[in-house]
Formats: sequence, structure tokens, C-alpha cells
Amino acid sequence: MTETTIARRLAAILAADVVAYSRLMGADEDATMTQWWEYRREVIDPGIEKLGGRIVKHTGDGFLAEFASAYDAVNCALELQREINERSEKVAEDKRVQFRMGVNLGDIMSDDEDIYGDGVNIAARIEALADPGRVFVSGSVYEQIRSKPDFDCVSKGEHALKNISEPMRVFDVCVAGQTPADEIKV
Amino acid sequence: MTETTIARRLAAILAADVVAYSRLMGADEDATMTQWWEYRREVIDPGIEKLGGRIVKHTGDGFLAEFASAYDAVNCALELQREINERSEKVAEDKRVQFRMGVNLGDIMSDDEDIYGDGVNIAARIEALADPGRVFVSGSVYEQIRSKPDFDCVSKGEHALKNISEPMRVFDVCVAGQTPADEIKV
Repeated sequence: MTETTIARRLAAILAADVVAYSRLMGADEDATMTQWWEYRREVIDPGIEKLGGRIVKHTGDGFLAEFASAYDAVNCALELQREINERSEKVAEDKRVQFRMGVNLGDIMSDDEDIYGDGVNIAARIEALADPGRVFVSGSVYEQIRSKPDFDCVSKGEHALKNISEPMRVFDVCVAGQTPADEIKV
Repeated sequence: MTETTIARRLAAILAADVVAYSRLMGADEDATMTQWWEYRREVIDPGIEKLGGRIVKHTGDGFLAEFASAYDAVNCALELQREINERSEKVAEDKRVQFRMGVNLGDIMSDDEDIYGDGVNIAARIEALADPGRVFVSGSVYEQIRSKPDFDCVSKGEHALKNISEPMRVFDVCVAGQTPADEIKV
């Protein structure tokens, strides 16, 4: 144990990816990219900035953002999904660009280009479990938001995540009052 | 769900209290206060500053500090306990000033005087469970440090904490290699 030489900081990490990106691009590259760019320009980038986050990087079919608070990250993810899902409904179902989003929190390290740490990897793994158009969060994030009246959470059980030693609890989160009726609220 | 108007931020919270403070003060007020002030002036205040934390407030018989990272908070708590325990060994057992320390993480809110939030309350509850001279942490903190080679963690089971709805997992943490032999490492 020594003095810390690496600067770590707690952050909430939002990972997002387009659902079935390869299929969409194979079917209609122009329509897919037009939507993706529209969402990025009009919804994602301004939404994250407005709701207290920072885009760490855009990936080919998604993005990674960080927030100083777990509440802000979940609030932002739900707001982005609400706006994107609303816009997507106007597009033919087989050309619809939708996102999976995952939120985790953890000690991260960063440089000018990227953020690093277990917590970042776990955010990406949780995002991959999310249903299209939904926001899934880790047990750590759930503990921060469960007592907030703004959100409803539905347990999605424990999942073994690739390269993560212990199973992680995963929750589907939505704006309070919008819980799918067939799910049991926790 | 609205734009966030309250500034929340993720922080690791270290809560600490003197063990059996009332008994010590009843038996020898001068000796107790002399040790407490010495530890505060020579160990606690400079140690927290050096290891990346901020003293939020001193209480009559303890203190509350915040850190930007869970790793830094645990590292600092262990370093403070090591130094205080070493100094305490030179004092007669019935006059020894020792501390319980608890670390939790969570979204906090703050003003000029104090920090607020569930996470702060839970840190104090976990601290109250700690054995004298030891550092106990919440499950959320454990998740951030369990893969670090610097620390060993021993599960202390789940505890129902006052005014907290769900039982919390609690862990006893020490510098790697110093786990009590009679405990099972997790």
C-alpha cells in the first residue's frame, strides 16, 4: 500500500449501442446512418451535455459517457431513450435505429482519449443485456436510485459477465409509473 | 423526471469514531483529549489531505471525510488505522484511544458545512459495526476494491441497518497479507 500515484475518481458510466447495427447497415446503410447522425446531433450530444454528462467517445455504433452522479446518468439515459424511441416509432420497423443502454458506477482512470477500469467494462456488459430501447443498470447504481421517487426498477436477476469474477445484479429502470405491467417491481 | 436542479456527485465517504469515548472520558478526560488531539493533528488531518481526501467535519469524538475514489478512501483509512494503532499500543489498554472506521460510496449533496445523502448515513452505520482499530466497508466499496492486490477483504455478512430498507453486505478490509488467520478470505 503506497501513496496513490494513479488518479482514480468515482463516476457513473453510460454505455450505449445501436441494436442490430450490422443488420440495419446491411439492409439500408444510408437510412441507418441518417438516423444515427440525427440522433447523435439532435438528441444524444446535446442531451448529455444538458443533463450533466460528458461524452467520452463515440464508437462506430454507439457512445460512452460519464457523469459525476449515478442519478444524473440514469436520468439522462431515460431521457435519451424516451426521445429516441419516440422518433423511432415514425420509422418503418425494420429500419428503426434503437439503442441498448447500460449504466454502472466505479472508480475510473482517464487520459485525454478514454476512460479505463472494471467499471467501464461492466457498463458495456450490462448494456449488452439491455432490451432494445431500455436502460439496464448494475446493482451499485440500483442502490443509489432505489429510494428515488423518479424511477421504477425491475430486477433482471444475477448475470455472469464475461471476465468479471462475481455474478452481477442487473435492473431494468424506467421513469416512475412506466414499469411494464407484466414485471414485478422490486 | 426533470432536469437535475440539485448537484449530486459520487463520493467515497469515510466515517470514524473513537471506541468507548464516554468511558474513556469518564475515566481520564485529559489523557483521552490529549491523545485525540495528537492523532487529529499529527495523523488524521495531514493523512487525509496527503491521501487525496477532504475532512468534511470533526465531530466530538470522530470525523467525516470524503474522497473522489473508493480506492483512495480505503487506502487512507487503513493508513490512518495503522498509524493510530501503532501509537495506541504504547498507551495503557484502558486509556487507549482507538477508532472504528467505515467506508461507503454514494451520490452525495453538499453545502459549505456538511454532506448529505443515504450514502453518508450508511457510512456511519457501517462504521458502528466495525471492530476497534479496523476498517469496515459496504458491498459497493467492496466491488471497487476486491480485484486490487493491495487489500484483503473478509465478509462480515449481511446487516440490517437502521432506517435502511435492504440488508447491506459488510466487509472487514486490511492491507494485503494481514488478514486475521481465523477469518475466511472472500
